[in-house]
Amino acid sequence: MQILEGIRVLDLTQIYQGPYAAFLLAMAGADVVKIEPPGGERMRRGGGKETPLAFAMLNSNKQSLTLNLKHDDGKALFLSLAKKADIVMENFAPGTMDRLGIGYDVLARVNPRLIYASATGYGLSGPDRDQLAMDHTIQASSGIMGATGEIGGPPARAGGTPCDIMGGIHMHAGILQALLGRAHTGNGTLVEISMQESMYFVLASEFTYLHATGKLPPRRGDRTNTVTTPYGRYECSDGWIAVISVSENHWRRILEAIGRADLIGDPDYADNKNRHAHEDKINEMIGDWCRGLTQKEAFAIMRKKKIPVAPIRDLKDVRDDRHMHERGMLQNFEHPYLGPIVLPNSPIRLSEFETSELRLFPEPGADGTAVLGDWLAMDGQTISGLAERGVI
Amino acid sequence: MQILEGIRVLDLTQIYQGPYAAFLLAMAGADVVKIEPPGGERMRRGGGKETPLAFAMLNSNKQSLTLNLKHDDGKALFLSLAKKADIVMENFAPGTMDRLGIGYDVLARVNPRLIYASATGYGLSGPDRDQLAMDHTIQASSGIMGATGEIGGPPARAGGTPCDIMGGIHMHAGILQALLGRAHTGNGTLVEISMQESMYFVLASEFTYLHATGKLPPRRGDRTNTVTTPYGRYECSDGWIAVISVSENHWRRILEAIGRADLIGDPDYADNKNRHAHEDKINEMIGDWCRGLTQKEAFAIMRKKKIPVAPIRDLKDVRDDRHMHERGMLQNFEHPYLGPIVLPNSPIRLSEFETSELRLFPEPGADGTAVLGDWLAMDGQTISGLAERGVI
Repeated sequence: MQILEGIRVLDLTQIYQGPYAAFLLAMAGADVVKIEPPGGERMRRGGGKETPLAFAMLNSNKQSLTLNLKHDDGKALFLSLAKKADIVMENFAPGTMDRLGIGYDVLARVNPRLIYASATGYGLSGPDRDQLAMDHTIQASSGIMGATGEIGGPPARAGGTPCDIMGGIHMHAGILQALLGRAHTGNGTLVEISMQESMYFVLASEFTYLHATGKLPPRRGDRTNTVTTPYGRYECSDGWIAVISVSENHWRRILEAIGRADLIGDPDYADNKNRHAHEDKINEMIGDWCRGLTQKEAFAIMRKKKIPVAPIRDLKDVRDDRHMHERGMLQNFEHPYLGPIVLPNSPIRLSEFETSELRLFPEPGADGTAVLGDWLAMDGQTISGLAERGVI
Repeated sequence: MQILEGIRVLDLTQIYQGPYAAFLLAMAGADVVKIEPPGGERMRRGGGKETPLAFAMLNSNKQSLTLNLKHDDGKALFLSLAKKADIVMENFAPGTMDRLGIGYDVLARVNPRLIYASATGYGLSGPDRDQLAMDHTIQASSGIMGATGEIGGPPARAGGTPCDIMGGIHMHAGILQALLGRAHTGNGTLVEISMQESMYFVLASEFTYLHATGKLPPRRGDRTNTVTTPYGRYECSDGWIAVISVSENHWRRILEAIGRADLIGDPDYADNKNRHAHEDKINEMIGDWCRGLTQKEAFAIMRKKKIPVAPIRDLKDVRDDRHMHERGMLQNFEHPYLGPIVLPNSPIRLSEFETSELRLFPEPGADGTAVLGDWLAMDGQTISGLAERGVI
């Protein structure tokens, strides 16, 4: 069986954060209806071939219903659906749903069992509540940008959109907590996620450095600020590898791997403290060894020695990763207009419960008739009328 | 009430990933017993003042029981506790628990209702299963490092340990899914999280670029690869700000803010495509304006204009953030040997359910007597005997 079988979700979320949370609900078996403005979510851009792959990645296994929430009849229709829903989720700026007349207070009165989830940049209270938030600005305000970058260089973005996805998975977890809570009390709740707050623990090592030294940890792109040595990135003839030594055994095996077994037992490198004092020399030795090898070769030798090592992969390597394809995390699809694409599955696996089969994202409004028929027993004529009046 | 009231957790996890998942369970009301080897988890390091702040951040609200799992009596004691537990969680390398004789298969036979959660670097199957994994190597293999760094520069670490925390929050969500599933079937399940897989969606924008162009997106530390312009980091007299313009309104307001209202309507900057073609010039204009102002001043002016802007904060700013303190996300504590520290709360908030009051982390084994008494009705003499024989 599937864990969220029979759970009905009205998903008003957009871009990355909320859609990730809703995608994970869908993969656990919930019926997720993506509510889009007529024409579709802005992230579809021009539609057709212009639809970004990211939209496909984040909206698999959802149904689509277009709905004009600024139209009185659209609002009424949304309220009728909310009466039948278990979950309403949105990641608009704080206050947007209230202004539309369909905020938490209104919906909770209409359906006391409803779980209402809000994901914003800074949460629904506090002095920064109304600051505009995207992954970029949250990277800045959460400290991630300040902690990313090269020695002496400017603060830099962490690759991708970690804040969006971190907010999204926290939203997903918050909704699951609410479902567990409702099983006890019979009542819904407001679930509130702040992207900024969801990033705080990412900097645990940096906060530790600040606490221990009273100083701000300097940025450095190759490692974190600990004495653990070696710990870095090393350039091979055709790419890079990342290596870290977390035990004396690792260090010994690294020396063997790079052909410097003669240094085993050398007091200069006796422990992390000593090695840290000779970090440049150590990095040079490993770097020299890597330069004469391809990424694959260096990785294979170190891996065989059970050293913590990984190739620093480019996106093609990641997308085509044999391991993730074999595990079913990544799957190949042929999409009518996007062509051959790789779609990711849910990273949450439970041995005794089924995950949904991955299904391609819907066209805007593709499931309008089905959803309004199923949820509200609406007939075809009524639905056509709504479409004619621009409500759906 | 609290959502996980009465839920008993045996938490064998260590370092960052698993402890974050368990911390979130504790904050939702579960009884989390941290099982540590005699002497305590390695992450406590030398103990006392040497305990890193990160340990305090990740182990609030847990109880501690020391247990020697390599001792036959320790193993027997663990099995007795597992019979009474709802959740066992661990983030050892794959196969470790099986080798100890207390893997999922054994525990599920002893307690069919048990939820067993494993978080590893690459999951429990597939060709890379046994690769050694830490945040550093997963940053490399997941593509995050390849996507982080400056134009023309080497691949770089994203600040902090995003992979550890991302794995941890997915583990938390997986456990919540399992609790919901158990409510239907009465049976537990294995929950399996791979850190590598939990990072895939972070690179949605980069995978989109690869799909659309067939090319690898170049690294650049100031922005992602979209035409959206302006989008970057700008240096003020004493710090940096991050700015992004996602609408034509933002662009107009940016021009007003930087005193270049004369360029409103200029065809060179008519839309994102045109602005992207003149990106250097735009960044120069904004940069020139920022240089004459402090971070605070530039931020205040842009914020007033409702431009998406944020100060690029250093760690002190983040730790002392007025907004997060006011919201209760961050709280000041005085710890007996760590001194004054700031501890983070759970980022998951539900209006109708209580979050635990933040409590300082326990000393190793501090709750042994209480846990063995409560869970197994063990008397003081028996417990002393276990301690004398080095079992606890």
